[in-house]
Amino acid sequence: MSNPDQDVFYMRQALALAQGVLYLPSPNPRVGCVVVRNGEVHGRGATQLVGGPHAEVMALRDVLQNGLTAEGATIYVTLEPCCHHGRTPPCVDALIAAKPARVVFSHFDPNPNVAGRGMRALREAGIQVTVGVCAEEALEINPGFISRMTRGVPYVWLKAAASLDGRTALSNGESQWITGAEARADGHHWRARSCTVVTGIGTVRTDNPQLTVRHVETPRQPRRAVIDPGLSIDANALVLKGGGTTLFTATKDTDKTLRLADVGAEVVYVPETKLVASSSLSGKSRPRVDLLEVMRWLAKRGDNEIHVEAGSGMNGALLQAGCIDELLIYTAPMLIGEGMGIAKLPGLHKLSQAPRFEFIDVARLGADVRLRARSVARWQDLLKKIHLN
Amino acid sequence: MSNPDQDVFYMRQALALAQGVLYLPSPNPRVGCVVVRNGEVHGRGATQLVGGPHAEVMALRDVLQNGLTAEGATIYVTLEPCCHHGRTPPCVDALIAAKPARVVFSHFDPNPNVAGRGMRALREAGIQVTVGVCAEEALEINPGFISRMTRGVPYVWLKAAASLDGRTALSNGESQWITGAEARADGHHWRARSCTVVTGIGTVRTDNPQLTVRHVETPRQPRRAVIDPGLSIDANALVLKGGGTTLFTATKDTDKTLRLADVGAEVVYVPETKLVASSSLSGKSRPRVDLLEVMRWLAKRGDNEIHVEAGSGMNGALLQAGCIDELLIYTAPMLIGEGMGIAKLPGLHKLSQAPRFEFIDVARLGADVRLRARSVARWQDLLKKIHLN
Repeated sequence: MSNPDQDVFYMRQALALAQGVLYLPSPNPRVGCVVVRNGEVHGRGATQLVGGPHAEVMALRDVLQNGLTAEGATIYVTLEPCCHHGRTPPCVDALIAAKPARVVFSHFDPNPNVAGRGMRALREAGIQVTVGVCAEEALEINPGFISRMTRGVPYVWLKAAASLDGRTALSNGESQWITGAEARADGHHWRARSCTVVTGIGTVRTDNPQLTVRHVETPRQPRRAVIDPGLSIDANALVLKGGGTTLFTATKDTDKTLRLADVGAEVVYVPETKLVASSSLSGKSRPRVDLLEVMRWLAKRGDNEIHVEAGSGMNGALLQAGCIDELLIYTAPMLIGEGMGIAKLPGLHKLSQAPRFEFIDVARLGADVRLRARSVARWQDLLKKIHLN
Repeated sequence: MSNPDQDVFYMRQALALAQGVLYLPSPNPRVGCVVVRNGEVHGRGATQLVGGPHAEVMALRDVLQNGLTAEGATIYVTLEPCCHHGRTPPCVDALIAAKPARVVFSHFDPNPNVAGRGMRALREAGIQVTVGVCAEEALEINPGFISRMTRGVPYVWLKAAASLDGRTALSNGESQWITGAEARADGHHWRARSCTVVTGIGTVRTDNPQLTVRHVETPRQPRRAVIDPGLSIDANALVLKGGGTTLFTATKDTDKTLRLADVGAEVVYVPETKLVASSSLSGKSRPRVDLLEVMRWLAKRGDNEIHVEAGSGMNGALLQAGCIDELLIYTAPMLIGEGMGIAKLPGLHKLSQAPRFEFIDVARLGADVRLRARSVARWQDLLKKIHLN
């Protein structure tokens, strides 16, 4: 009855459904579900906007709408079905009620409210359960959800558009546009799938970006945040327009905080409390934000994925603080020479000290190339986390 | 009788044969030839080491060895057949003697000794001739030969291995190895197909490279050259080992020249004679080599393709002198921050001033990615040159 090739075949269909709602269900994971009976797909579903139905319920509804039944079927889900009352009733109950013979899911849901209980509930109801089909492919779709549940921080990628020699802007700051329209639209795709777009105060000053999603259609705008240690942001900055922007600061300034609240911005005080070698040596004591604490704060409010689009200073600080999972680099076919770099990092003495990334995707986008590279250690860690037994 | 799809089909086979001798026939072009009769390939050939037979002769010999005939056949050649006595007799004579019904070639040979005369000789012998099948694909195989014949300079690519942020070495000079074994082997492939590997005196001092081909098999080592304005090279430098290395200098030093002749190195005096704004402004008057003249000198001795493997200073100078046709960048999945860049270039004021390149190939090599980008203007120019009528 269980055929591994067939399981992979249908699980990939479920994964494609999850992939189809990348922008939608945050803070919930993107999940896809396919109901297969007698070798035919009887229903399909994917998680909806938060508060709406999960993938399993959508798929079972689809079965009914098709005038079919899930009784005796095999149900493929890209994540362990939930068994707790959240904003919606548990999916496990809906599955049991539909009386399938077998449920296949890719990996356990590390949410402590689930974490194997979904599987046990199904088995106790006499349903055969198979776990581990396309587990890494499923993780690729929800790295942020898994990261938040298991590490207490979001999955963070750093986006940069640079020349072949790694320059993101001319020395005079000109950066519009190094890459072309296709790369920019793709950058907006990554903004759209993130929960929050994060930048630094330097970028706000230099480029005054909106950081909204405009070049792709999305049912949901990501939130925005600025790392602003001195709380020096101009209340007219475009990134504050529309409200809801979070400002992470190391400066207590009630007046400024109130003025920013007037434009709908929230100020969060997260000072770096550890002694910072470089700033103490230089004699300057500029306030610094605790970047790891920023990430923990974002995870606590439900952020799965963070899209960082900042300058070399902030990029370097985030890399050094161990906040970056992935590099998303758009490379334009030009050499600039003098100019701004991707990340300001302290000089290495040995090449072996450089943090190890690995290329996971290379794509041509119009005249440009997109290179995705992932932190090997951080990904291995996430992979371990979904193999809980 | 003439079928365009079929012409492309067989021409691609001939191109593959030319591709198979990339390292071999320099300074002659790489040419492939396929003899097709009644829909069957009767013979194949490619140009041999200089002085050896050309592709057409190899293919006709192959026909005979197969106990077949080329009479009435269609013969596909990736370049217009030669009609002059060089080191070997004209291929056109051999073709006419073989009595084919038709000869198809990709583009004219811009060699002033040929340049359409090959076609005319064939037509005068009553052979039908078709020109222009896969012309750009053929140019891809012999850009250097075409460049030397039409522009009087070789086709030059600049090879660099860099991190994602465009660093080729740490600030302390460490660069072994940013990229992995596959990328290094591929780099040697590009050395092997070139006529001369060129570097700067800075790289000789820092890395003391041999610049020979070692990681791929080759029947022919490329020549080596060093741009050494002050003629300051150490006579024990590894790049001089084995002899035959050319040193381009702007310094007359008979003693040093004689000492270098002892280790088999040739010194060529090519001083920059134009007033150089930057050096006169800085008050220093370091001797400079006329890089364009270097390229002309190399072309005159028969060099088709030049592989540049140098530091940021030399790379920047070559780019600014308009010597570079192609960038061959190996990118490693790491960020280095502070370090050496790919090319030292003067700061641009507008992005639109940056010379336009276009990506022509993206390949994954082990853990690294190879990006090839070509100067749009220079390639368009070469393309025009082969469409002479």
